[in-house]
Amino acid sequence: MNFKEKFSAIVAKNNSLVCIGLDSELAKLPEHLKSADNPQFEFNKAIIDATADLVCAYKPNMAFYEAEGVKGMESLKKTIAYIPKHIPVILDAKRGDIDNTSRLYAQACFEYLGADAVTVHGYMGTDTVKPFLEYADKAIFVLVKTSNPSAVEFEDLPGEEGNPNYLRMAELVAGWGRLFPGTAGAVVGATYPDDLLPIREILPEAPLLIPGLGKQGGDAEKTVKNGMNARKVGILVNNSRGIIFASEADDFADAAREKAQAFRDMLNQLR
Amino acid sequence: MNFKEKFSAIVAKNNSLVCIGLDSELAKLPEHLKSADNPQFEFNKAIIDATADLVCAYKPNMAFYEAEGVKGMESLKKTIAYIPKHIPVILDAKRGDIDNTSRLYAQACFEYLGADAVTVHGYMGTDTVKPFLEYADKAIFVLVKTSNPSAVEFEDLPGEEGNPNYLRMAELVAGWGRLFPGTAGAVVGATYPDDLLPIREILPEAPLLIPGLGKQGGDAEKTVKNGMNARKVGILVNNSRGIIFASEADDFADAAREKAQAFRDMLNQLR
Repeated sequence: MNFKEKFSAIVAKNNSLVCIGLDSELAKLPEHLKSADNPQFEFNKAIIDATADLVCAYKPNMAFYEAEGVKGMESLKKTIAYIPKHIPVILDAKRGDIDNTSRLYAQACFEYLGADAVTVHGYMGTDTVKPFLEYADKAIFVLVKTSNPSAVEFEDLPGEEGNPNYLRMAELVAGWGRLFPGTAGAVVGATYPDDLLPIREILPEAPLLIPGLGKQGGDAEKTVKNGMNARKVGILVNNSRGIIFASEADDFADAAREKAQAFRDMLNQLR
Repeated sequence: MNFKEKFSAIVAKNNSLVCIGLDSELAKLPEHLKSADNPQFEFNKAIIDATADLVCAYKPNMAFYEAEGVKGMESLKKTIAYIPKHIPVILDAKRGDIDNTSRLYAQACFEYLGADAVTVHGYMGTDTVKPFLEYADKAIFVLVKTSNPSAVEFEDLPGEEGNPNYLRMAELVAGWGRLFPGTAGAVVGATYPDDLLPIREILPEAPLLIPGLGKQGGDAEKTVKNGMNARKVGILVNNSRGIIFASEADDFADAAREKAQAFRDMLNQLR
């Protein structure tokens, strides 16, 4: 089953557009877990057990595991292996390098760690994303318009015809999707919901990974309306800290479930 | 000692503009090393022992270690710890993410792994590179014009005034250098040596990390002439596979030393 089929199946099964970001920063985990052999994995395991019927994807953020070195990588690998096979795993790694290097990153993300998709930088062009695209059953999400405040500094710079850089990046992504059907999606921040419309026009079918609705405070209604494709699907709305750190106490998994359910229902009402 | 001072000192001491890229792909290592506990580290150790008096920096490429998982990260950490303290280590990681994530990547690269500098993507703007810049004694090298063939697809797209994107990225880097003196450099490929001139104009003092002269076949003379600053320094010319894989046999370290020496002398003749 390729990424697109896996993604369509889970959206239908769980009736959900929610992607939970596993930004499981060690310092923020409940105290009683910190003495475990793999605290980040134990934390993620509890979150996954509590939310697996509510999500369309999980998105572990590589940085939070890399920061813990060898132990962190162990936790990340175990986490991905633990996620039920019918739920897509998007590794938020934001990789992008020349071809022989991207090939190794692809190997690390897809083969060693076992992710279904990875976020990538498109700045360096086709040959840097091709090694990822060549995995026919996997997918990439290219950074088009990111959710952070400084995104406007470069991504919004206008080209000769006035089109901002993020739309020119979206056009590259559209080209990659034609070369490798079903494997090229885009990252678009919910903090710039008006920008979703022209991006969706350029990418009518691509899955859009949308961060920025949790702690970053994006506009939910505009995000869902502007981001969905014609069949009212095609978006993965991410929430990381707003769900996984809903409670700092022993009830963290229950609290995460409650937040995830509320987030799912809220998004579904806007569809 | 901050990065700039360390870099100036080693260029003078070793009379070298050579940065050796430790792209130590496991599959390419000599057979007799593959049974070692940390083959990538053993390989790097031999290369470092053979070349430490000939370089101005080492640049391990993160992908080649990540691809080997936990073992690879062990090798990378040991390699960086083994490199003599007076030689700068640039971790080629091409990171770039929103602020709370970049903070963790900076922690992983600078604190856990102990690198002196890291390569980063600037596409997402200031808040994504600031966590790296806040380490006053460390440095970043921002991808401005990369060495790969597809670099032109996005990096060369013209803006409203006709200036290509890579020059607009160079202007951002110049701004970061003003905010955080001595910490913002740029990556510029030797495969586009004419583009070094306008980039050097925008960044008169920044260190330029220049890949593309080894296997990728850039123009050495133009690269050195166009890349150097007014004091005939300020460039780190990278060579990875051309040096470290000069021989596949047991004499690989000697062969690397020979290539490194020839590469250093060739660059110095062009200064």
